[in-house]
Order: sequence, then structure tokens, then C-alpha cells
Amino acid sequence: MTDQKLIGVDLGGTTTKFAITTTDGEIQQRWSIDTNVLDDGAHIVPDIIDSINEHLALYQMQPADFAGIGMGSPGSVDIQAGTVTGAYNLNWKTSQNVKADIEAGTHMPLTIDNDANVAALGERWRGAGENEPDVVFVTLGTGVGGGVIADGHLLHGVGGSAGEIGHVCVDPHGYLCTCGNHGCLETVASATGVVRVAREMAEEYSGNSSIKKTLDDGDEISSKIVFDAAKNGDPLAIKVVDRVSYFLGLALANVANTMNPRYVVIGGGVSAAGEFLRSQVEKYFKQYAFNNVRNTTEIRLATLGNGAGVLGAARLALK
Amino acid sequence: MTDQKLIGVDLGGTTTKFAITTTDGEIQQRWSIDTNVLDDGAHIVPDIIDSINEHLALYQMQPADFAGIGMGSPGSVDIQAGTVTGAYNLNWKTSQNVKADIEAGTHMPLTIDNDANVAALGERWRGAGENEPDVVFVTLGTGVGGGVIADGHLLHGVGGSAGEIGHVCVDPHGYLCTCGNHGCLETVASATGVVRVAREMAEEYSGNSSIKKTLDDGDEISSKIVFDAAKNGDPLAIKVVDRVSYFLGLALANVANTMNPRYVVIGGGVSAAGEFLRSQVEKYFKQYAFNNVRNTTEIRLATLGNGAGVLGAARLALK
Repeated sequence: MTDQKLIGVDLGGTTTKFAITTTDGEIQQRWSIDTNVLDDGAHIVPDIIDSINEHLALYQMQPADFAGIGMGSPGSVDIQAGTVTGAYNLNWKTSQNVKADIEAGTHMPLTIDNDANVAALGERWRGAGENEPDVVFVTLGTGVGGGVIADGHLLHGVGGSAGEIGHVCVDPHGYLCTCGNHGCLETVASATGVVRVAREMAEEYSGNSSIKKTLDDGDEISSKIVFDAAKNGDPLAIKVVDRVSYFLGLALANVANTMNPRYVVIGGGVSAAGEFLRSQVEKYFKQYAFNNVRNTTEIRLATLGNGAGVLGAARLALK
Repeated sequence: MTDQKLIGVDLGGTTTKFAITTTDGEIQQRWSIDTNVLDDGAHIVPDIIDSINEHLALYQMQPADFAGIGMGSPGSVDIQAGTVTGAYNLNWKTSQNVKADIEAGTHMPLTIDNDANVAALGERWRGAGENEPDVVFVTLGTGVGGGVIADGHLLHGVGGSAGEIGHVCVDPHGYLCTCGNHGCLETVASATGVVRVAREMAEEYSGNSSIKKTLDDGDEISSKIVFDAAKNGDPLAIKVVDRVSYFLGLALANVANTMNPRYVVIGGGVSAAGEFLRSQVEKYFKQYAFNNVRNTTEIRLATLGNGAGVLGAARLALK
């Protein structure tokens, strides 16, 4: 069995990525296809089946050569039933029998989970997590997602909401979140959250600032513009990054006070700000973490970028 | 092997409790001895060995009748080495080879963990946790402790500090905690924390209140006095319980947003306030929990009281 391979599938709204890996996570083949979301996403699963079967033929491999297929999907995933609901960026308006259909079409067993959990598994397995048994992953993108691996197990919780770090409350009197609560981490640490913090702080700021000038001119800013301005010494941008880092440090310290993971790994588009962001989050993390947590849990940047999903998906197939 | 029994030992500063249970956690025998902390606690381990051996003789049982011994201890427990350090209420000033000594003296394997984790295991196994795979336990006593069972595993984290829910920060500008941080849950929700909140709120309160009168008279109050006064309609005490419940609800919601456990179980002396406290904590929990967590995670009161430790200890012996 040790020479069996794994197939990872990372289903996204524009691209679907595939990889064939060893059971150690070495990538042997990788490819991708456009995700065709037309016709209520009816082509998505057939396209995945065809692409897998075509590549197996190309590489002269058989289903028996594989331990199975793992897959990450947007939306709400029922990991037992293998179904996906509410994946609006795929135009999937009704529940999809992803597992049953792909298993029938490829003759291999499929394990499916949501994309944030799969990215967490990938970073833990082959990225910054160094395959440690206790790793927390937080992804700062359009929203803030997360995944928790504890004692070697990817956590789901009773309702599948384990790892919803984006909805940890960091400010009970804070901004209204899309979830209906106030002051969720996502409202201040997602890409849009960073811009929201910058807009609010700009209103009260009277000094010179490139981002204030941009906003006053009626132009749009992005989280990247804020971080770049801060790196270039813009005094308002520096304050914005400090506030975002405070909220991230507080939230991650509280997660770590509960889990005491070896690593808290920060990924997603906002984390492109790199060490500049990490070091400031770490400052507040150390302020709010319990003594022994401060000394044993480390804040790291993700290392796999967009490749975390397909690797984590492959890892799902390894029981 | 199914007819093997378990021995649980709950080591405390005044009493050491013992139980012989089935592998299902049915208690067949229970007894206790005074904990003799004289001579730097040198009698503790020998007394435990003697008591186990005497009771086995009394019940005409042999070491081979048992899967092993589980034990909960105060202090900092190295679960791999089986040693205990810093258990000041036992007068143990140096590291103690508890596992090696008890195994040599009883000819049974010993598994040891800290008392908060063991109580969590007990409540999860045979108490309010109903043996669910995902249960968080928080104990409100002199301090605030906790234990986390996730996907069926008792979590320790990389440094043994998983479950330090008492040091989740609920108020970054709050009271100084014994741990050196500010605004830890323990500073407001332990027995002394409740009194601290009552004292501070009494200073700003000008209405009629039995607890304000007691404090103004220079007399001591306790968390029980505060809860009893609130139940009797004392307006200041009602405000104090509301504030304590807010902090507990916020902290437990954030823990649940990360873990999504089936149950969050509240135990310890302060939880003697019962449904009166639970319902108010639940109100704030529901306010700060993520939608799906609010619908799937339930706040419960512990049901085993002081008996959780010895049962959780027995559970430790069941691999």
C-alpha cells in the first residue's frame, strides 16, 4: 500500500486545481482546468471526473494505484454525506452529491471537506505547520476563515463550525458582521475589514497621509495599498496596521489559550504583507497569551500560498 | 479484557479519593483518605500505594484484574514522564516521580494528568457531556480552569496549556491577573473575581443593596452571598451577576467559535448558583456565538460535582 498515490482536487470559483502526490505529499503531477459555472454549475463535477480519467490514461495509471481522492470545496460541506450546499460562487443553488458522483465516475473513494479546512491541512502537512499534531490556520482574504488541527485531528465540531476564527468576537461594540454579530475578527482583519478600519481612522486623522488623500479624493483603497503605505512610513497607515494587528493578536492569543498549538499559521491574501504584519501580530499575541502559551506557541506565515488547497485535499485522501 | 476494571485516584490538598469502576464508568467501590502533606508531602505517594494495595486485598482482587490506574493531580503534570512539579498545596517543592513510584508499588500501569483535565474527562464521560466527542469543560472555583475534549481526544497542546480558559482575555483593559496579563476570565469569573466585580460596582452604586451594606460595614462577602442576593432581587447583585455572565458568555462563545463543541459544561463552586447563572451566561453566549455554533453548541451545568475527578481519573486508565 505504501506505493499508492493520492489525488487532490481544489475546487474554486474560477479554477479547479489537481495534483497527484505520494503519501508523503510529494507532488508528482499537477494540472488545472477552468471551472465552468454555467448552467447552475452542472458541468463542474463531470469536468472533474473527465479530467481525472484523462490524466490517469495519460499517465497510464489505474484507480487501484490510488488510496483515493481528496477534495476541497467552497460552500457548506457535509463530510459524512459528501454533499455541498450554498456554494454560490459555483452557481450551485441546490445540494450537490459530489462524493457519490465522483466516486461513480472515477471508481475511487472520495473524501471532501470545506476549502478552509483543506487549506489548513495542507499548510499543516507540507507548509509552515511542519506536520505538527497541533496547528491552527487562519486565512485572511475576502473573509477570515480558519482550520484547527488538534492532536493530529482536523476538527469539525458538532455542527461543522470548528475553526470559524473569523467570527471570534474581538470588539463587542464593533462593526456589524455579515453573520449578524458585532465585532467579529473578520470585520477588521479581512481585506475589506482592513479598508474599513482605514476609512474610519482616516475620518479622525488630520495629519499628512497618502491613504487619507486617496480616500479624500474619492478613490478606492485596498488592504495592499494600506500595508504598502505603512511600510513606506505613512503615519495613518501605520496606525491602521497597528489596530488590525492588535485585533489579530488578541483573537489568536485567545485561540491559543484554548488550544496551545505549536504553530498559528497566517495565510490568505492579506498575509502577503509578510513579516511586517506577522511581527506586529506577534507583539500583541505575546501580550495576551498565557505565559506558557507565549513560550510554546509560535506565529508563522503560511508558505504554500494557493498550493495549500490541493495538497490538503490530497492529505484528506490519506486515512 | 472487557471484564477488567479501572482504578481512579483524585489527589487533592486535603483528601485523596479513590474509585474502582467498570470500563463503562460504573463505580463498584469508592473510598477516600486524608492527604498527609507533612514532611514536604513525602507520605502522599506511599499512602496512595498502601491504600490501593489494602483495598485490593480487601476485595480479593489482583493487579491483573485492572487495565490500570488513572490519576488527577494538582500542579504541573508531565504526562509523558509521569512527574508532578509545583503542587504547592501538597507541599511538593521538587519534581515527584509519581508514575514510577506508584507503578512499582502497585504493579499496575499509571496514567496521570492535571486535575482540571481529569475533571473535564469525568464530566464528559459520565456527566453532562454524555460522552460526546466534542466537549469543553470550564470550572469556576478559586481560579478558573478548563479542559477540552475534541474529536474524542483530551487536548494538551504543545506545552500542556490547552484548556487554559481562565486566561482567555475578556477585557484588554481589565484587572491584573495572577498570570501577569490583564482582563483574564479568571479575574472576573472565579469566586474571588465575582467578589472583585461586586466591590468595584458597589463603589459606584448609590441605591439600596444588601451586599453594598455588608461591604460598607467592612464585612466580607463571597460569590455565594452575591448570587444569593441576586436571586433575592438585590439590584446591585443582579448587576454584578449580569456583568460576570457577560464575560463568561463572551469567553465561552469565542471558545465555541473555535471548537464548536456539543456541550460547554460549567462546573466548580461558583456553578452552584445553578440555572440562575447558566441561563444568564447562555444569553450572552448566544449573542456572541456564530450562527451555526449558537444552534448546535449547548451550555450545561456540570452534574458530577466533586465526583468528576475520580471518574475522569478512572477514564484515563482506559486506553
